[in-house]
Amino acid sequence: MKKYDVVVIGGGPGGYPAAIRAAQLGLSVAIVEMNRFGGECTNFGCIPTKSMIKPVEAMWYVRNKDFFSGEVSLDFQKYMEWVKGIVGRLSNGVRDLLKGNGVDMFEGRGRLLDRYSVSVDGSEVLQARSIILATGTSPSSIPGVEVDGEVIHNNRTIMGLKRKPSSILIIGGGYIGVEFASMMSKIGVEVYLVEIMDRLLPGMDSDFSRFIERKLRSYGVKVFKGTKVDEVKKLENGVRASLSNGSSIDSEIVLVAVGRKPNTSDLGLEAAGVETDPRGFIRVDGRCRTNIPNIYAVGDVTGGAMLAHRAFMQGVVAAENAAGLNSVFDARGIPAVVFTDPELAYVGVNKEEASAMGIDADSVRIPLGGVARAIIDDSADGFIKVTFDRESKAVLGVHVAAHNASEIISEATLAIEMGATLEDLALTIHPHPTISESIKEVADVALGKPLHYLIRRRG
Amino acid sequence: MKKYDVVVIGGGPGGYPAAIRAAQLGLSVAIVEMNRFGGECTNFGCIPTKSMIKPVEAMWYVRNKDFFSGEVSLDFQKYMEWVKGIVGRLSNGVRDLLKGNGVDMFEGRGRLLDRYSVSVDGSEVLQARSIILATGTSPSSIPGVEVDGEVIHNNRTIMGLKRKPSSILIIGGGYIGVEFASMMSKIGVEVYLVEIMDRLLPGMDSDFSRFIERKLRSYGVKVFKGTKVDEVKKLENGVRASLSNGSSIDSEIVLVAVGRKPNTSDLGLEAAGVETDPRGFIRVDGRCRTNIPNIYAVGDVTGGAMLAHRAFMQGVVAAENAAGLNSVFDARGIPAVVFTDPELAYVGVNKEEASAMGIDADSVRIPLGGVARAIIDDSADGFIKVTFDRESKAVLGVHVAAHNASEIISEATLAIEMGATLEDLALTIHPHPTISESIKEVADVALGKPLHYLIRRRG
Repeated sequence: MKKYDVVVIGGGPGGYPAAIRAAQLGLSVAIVEMNRFGGECTNFGCIPTKSMIKPVEAMWYVRNKDFFSGEVSLDFQKYMEWVKGIVGRLSNGVRDLLKGNGVDMFEGRGRLLDRYSVSVDGSEVLQARSIILATGTSPSSIPGVEVDGEVIHNNRTIMGLKRKPSSILIIGGGYIGVEFASMMSKIGVEVYLVEIMDRLLPGMDSDFSRFIERKLRSYGVKVFKGTKVDEVKKLENGVRASLSNGSSIDSEIVLVAVGRKPNTSDLGLEAAGVETDPRGFIRVDGRCRTNIPNIYAVGDVTGGAMLAHRAFMQGVVAAENAAGLNSVFDARGIPAVVFTDPELAYVGVNKEEASAMGIDADSVRIPLGGVARAIIDDSADGFIKVTFDRESKAVLGVHVAAHNASEIISEATLAIEMGATLEDLALTIHPHPTISESIKEVADVALGKPLHYLIRRRG
Repeated sequence: MKKYDVVVIGGGPGGYPAAIRAAQLGLSVAIVEMNRFGGECTNFGCIPTKSMIKPVEAMWYVRNKDFFSGEVSLDFQKYMEWVKGIVGRLSNGVRDLLKGNGVDMFEGRGRLLDRYSVSVDGSEVLQARSIILATGTSPSSIPGVEVDGEVIHNNRTIMGLKRKPSSILIIGGGYIGVEFASMMSKIGVEVYLVEIMDRLLPGMDSDFSRFIERKLRSYGVKVFKGTKVDEVKKLENGVRASLSNGSSIDSEIVLVAVGRKPNTSDLGLEAAGVETDPRGFIRVDGRCRTNIPNIYAVGDVTGGAMLAHRAFMQGVVAAENAAGLNSVFDARGIPAVVFTDPELAYVGVNKEEASAMGIDADSVRIPLGGVARAIIDDSADGFIKVTFDRESKAVLGVHVAAHNASEIISEATLAIEMGATLEDLALTIHPHPTISESIKEVADVALGKPLHYLIRRRG
């Protein structure tokens, strides 16, 4: 029986940073992964989807500018192989990092036997002083729509697509749904997007919902809101979906993207006495500790914002606490991005959320038509919105819909982390011409001294 | 004779912000522009060149990925018309902003008659309590290479190109030279780049020089360093340039990009008693005041870093002082970008510059091979370098060579403005997958706790 200071179950964006950080702190560490190192993010989520996007954007751009002539087409199979190549490189990279940091890797299903031991595939047993659970989530399914990986897909099986479908029904208008809708429509797939709530991206700022619906419709996506898919029947060449509004949609394939469920069954939580919430997510405190003192949990399996970068940070926090440091996960701002075209990114709160927290907040929104780089990059119809404390002028949140929003949101995140005010943003020189200039501009507008806008207040 | 609180001479990135801000502060303002509103930046610099880049990048990407088939070609004339369209939109936008803020616009050459009056084209005279000089710079020329706007160009005349040349000799390996070399080589123009100093981008960090030379050579650019162009002779179809190394280059056209000279001749500086430095740039203090109390100068005509975004801020400072506020230009960090592929961006100082200032600094540089988005975006061969105070760990400078470096440098600029430490960057959650994660990663490496790198210290 092998003994370790720390055993991590799960090698995704929560687990591998936990293992690496624990090893850096001088602990002996093992990590157990039942599928592929890198987890959902590297193998089925962030990495393959963001890899799929860049070629699509380039092709779309070339096709839609009249100064280009000729025709370019995408070899779908080669394209998906290229995506797999990047996934493979990064998944191997995670293995190299673990190995380079001296972490022992085990492949198989990790299961708690008690508070101090973990079995691998029910055979080998690892003894641990501390255990970090980082098992992530799996795609939720819906009754009557069974994923078969051939015609009916979830975000995992769709990565195995061999050829471009002629049409796709996407069930769920959350971030996965809208990202696939944006991407698929632009490579010429007929896209039907069905969302049960009355707006797309229901968990996010409603400005995003309106904006992205308009964009998706402009790409030809058929959007159905407040609509439920009652049943999906297989036809000879595809499926027929019956909708709650009485109509039906025929499509070649289906993508089910209706949320995530925690990977906690068959994990031995009961054997160790680890508590979960009513939805099955593992309860943790600010130090990522479960109710059992030597057992931690990090990443999506703890619920909350399911984001790889949040999991990275939680993994580090858990490892540091396991090593006896006093480390707290207290990020003021956790950015989130929807990788549509254009990208939607935000950090902190909007006015409604701030008000609900009892803060006297205001927000100012400007379109990007006054930002030179946005015009150059076809993002002039995007927007940026800053939310701030009315009295102190402290920045509380930023929402951006623009090309490269994912990159510029980090400045806003640092601003919130450091307690910056609108004046701090306004006095920071931003390089010209960039989209990030919009951060200074919106602060200037909020302060009543815009350079590139005539006064347009109130977002 | 019209009387104003403020008369601004020059409608570029220094002048128009000065006029707008002065008007916002309740002053009566006139602005005099002899060419086109928006100035060098909007009409001949940042805007047209950055507009030219995006289509080139998209075409290059599509041509170089084997999952695309078919051939796409660029209609050079339509492309340049599209560029002109953006320039026109933004130049008109500047006029609209001036008008919307109640600024009176005069077209013609502005000249100081004395400390309180400005003539427009030698006829109309404007009386002013304060005058703000924002006349910018013009391209320098070199003996024996006379710009004719047909075969031999500077950055202004080259915007009138009607068709794609087969080859170009670029004289000067500064930022204009390398940007055109990057762009032109990728649309299939044979590029010769000649720099008199022993490295490209001689004013910048030498890591940039080495990096961009390697990239340009990979695009097929022929780079000649430590080489002078002695003479350029016109041939029937182009030119023949004689180099100091004894060889010669034949090319269809030439771009001269060897620096800038201040637009101070024929400005009436002597009549008002305004002092210049030995190179002809107008001397100003931190409040943008010249030696004459009611006369200010802003932007490139004051020398220093010739950047539109620095001029924006100086224009605002001058206007605020003219309005009786006490405003100082004291930006700790002025970012700068070279819009090559990939982009080079920096803010603050490198280790050598910090040491020269007497600061005990260190720097850490990492390649971007461990940053997922850099791999996706073909930027894995780029790098990021952070320079910091060895004792306090305060961030002193950041240098980035990557896709979208121009956007991510703003976070680094805010960090420097707010006195952030490495730990502040490391504790800020960056969205995954983005290039901006490299800012956190390089801080993590410098702090000895990298997640996505095995220890590689010392930049």
